[in-house]
Amino acid sequence: MKTNLILINNDIVDAEEINVHPFNRGHQFGDGVYEIVPVYNGKALHAEAHMENLFNAIVQIRIPGFYMVDEMVEFTNRLIEAAEVTDGLLYTQVTRGIGPYELDFPGQCEPELIMQAVPLDRVALAEMRQTGVNLLTVPDERAVKCDLNTLYRLPEILARNKARVGKFYDALFVKDEKITEATESTFMVVKDEMLWTYPMKLGSIHDNGMRRLIKEKLAPALDMQVIEKAFTKDFALNADEALLCGCRCEIMPVAKIDRRVVGDGKPGKFTLQLQGVFEDYIREQTK
Amino acid sequence: MKTNLILINNDIVDAEEINVHPFNRGHQFGDGVYEIVPVYNGKALHAEAHMENLFNAIVQIRIPGFYMVDEMVEFTNRLIEAAEVTDGLLYTQVTRGIGPYELDFPGQCEPELIMQAVPLDRVALAEMRQTGVNLLTVPDERAVKCDLNTLYRLPEILARNKARVGKFYDALFVKDEKITEATESTFMVVKDEMLWTYPMKLGSIHDNGMRRLIKEKLAPALDMQVIEKAFTKDFALNADEALLCGCRCEIMPVAKIDRRVVGDGKPGKFTLQLQGVFEDYIREQTK
Repeated sequence: MKTNLILINNDIVDAEEINVHPFNRGHQFGDGVYEIVPVYNGKALHAEAHMENLFNAIVQIRIPGFYMVDEMVEFTNRLIEAAEVTDGLLYTQVTRGIGPYELDFPGQCEPELIMQAVPLDRVALAEMRQTGVNLLTVPDERAVKCDLNTLYRLPEILARNKARVGKFYDALFVKDEKITEATESTFMVVKDEMLWTYPMKLGSIHDNGMRRLIKEKLAPALDMQVIEKAFTKDFALNADEALLCGCRCEIMPVAKIDRRVVGDGKPGKFTLQLQGVFEDYIREQTK
Repeated sequence: MKTNLILINNDIVDAEEINVHPFNRGHQFGDGVYEIVPVYNGKALHAEAHMENLFNAIVQIRIPGFYMVDEMVEFTNRLIEAAEVTDGLLYTQVTRGIGPYELDFPGQCEPELIMQAVPLDRVALAEMRQTGVNLLTVPDERAVKCDLNTLYRLPEILARNKARVGKFYDALFVKDEKITEATESTFMVVKDEMLWTYPMKLGSIHDNGMRRLIKEKLAPALDMQVIEKAFTKDFALNADEALLCGCRCEIMPVAKIDRRVVGDGKPGKFTLQLQGVFEDYIREQTK
């Protein structure tokens, strides 16, 4: 994979050759949004749905007329080919462009779209799936609205760092005593053969593609219902299984939370079945 | 003022000549902090206190060993001279530097400090002070902790835009029915000859240099006490005077909130006295 190649607006260039202007509002204000598309076998998974998400986010933060969904899907495919991405992620970020240092939208601005290929060690993740991962709960002090993929990841970065320093795989956010999500994935538990997860409508979690896929396709394939209801850490510790899902970790069993065992502390039966159904789905979609 | 000149780490260069790497974590994650220093008569006001703030913010987000406070004060003075800043603002931003696209801190990173001069039309602001400004309340959906100057300003940008579209001067954030602050300034009211403002300890407001100055020097000079206590919009509408204070607007009378008059709708007596004391203070500090 050529991680040095990036697509900027319409061109594919070497990352070292392009300049992000120091007055780019993405750099100064986090004035932009992003989207991540997983790539399997050289093919983008759900590129159109992801680019629709990105398009909606662009509209919501009022970045003016820019690329259409089909153009951004085409960029995705062009960069996958140029950067020779077989497996990994495509990161796309759109900012409002360059402007004077002030909160007001610039009178005229040319938004900037940057896309890059991100490598991912799916073999290492598959190995972690054998034992499950450990999570550390931290207070969720992020913005009230987390459903938009904005460029502000600092609370997630600091939470992740806190977890890693303590040898945890990741941090799990807790807000008003309820588990919201992990730093870059959705948290779910299995209880009574149903999947429980924090509700989208409360706006405190990201709209995660893997969460949607589980709800719409993978859980129904296993005849499991998804219950969107907030729950506490104690509820999770007393559940039968716990898991993370996201475009990086796919479906990852959670063995412990705050060093306490979930279920029997081994990767859960339904969790591994969900991952199996996901792998079948990927094979079918990217063949 | 040469707004094209920026100081990047140790060098002063033309903004067009330098590259922010597209993989800079400031650009991708908002992984950084900023500070604004007002400049009067070619002199930075409270440069050391501001750079101490910045240094503390750098430490708090765990950016590793970097510039000391006195070095950053020296940068401030060098850029003021090189960019021929007589009146305006100096914006400094520090990011964690370049890294692969992942939340984890990069194994090795070289933090990046960028400083630029920002022009400010203080004459236009003085004219606005004659009539006072109008504010629009909006829900405060920012991060729980706003006391750090992080690079995420999108909620403030969108609130400002909403205000400007409706011909308001600025937006005023309301959280749990209490007024927290405006998009880039502190909100205060005068009632019973005392200044009321949202308490710092609740963490939902920025630690504003002008707020500190009012509390420590300007209000005592007028024999006024500062009450740090959260209050509602109704409380503000029934106060005698309302004002914004910050490094851009200095001390700005507020005439209306949501199109309803505060006090008698004219710039308040104490508000204008505070501005007068501030101007005396500036003259003394920068002579």
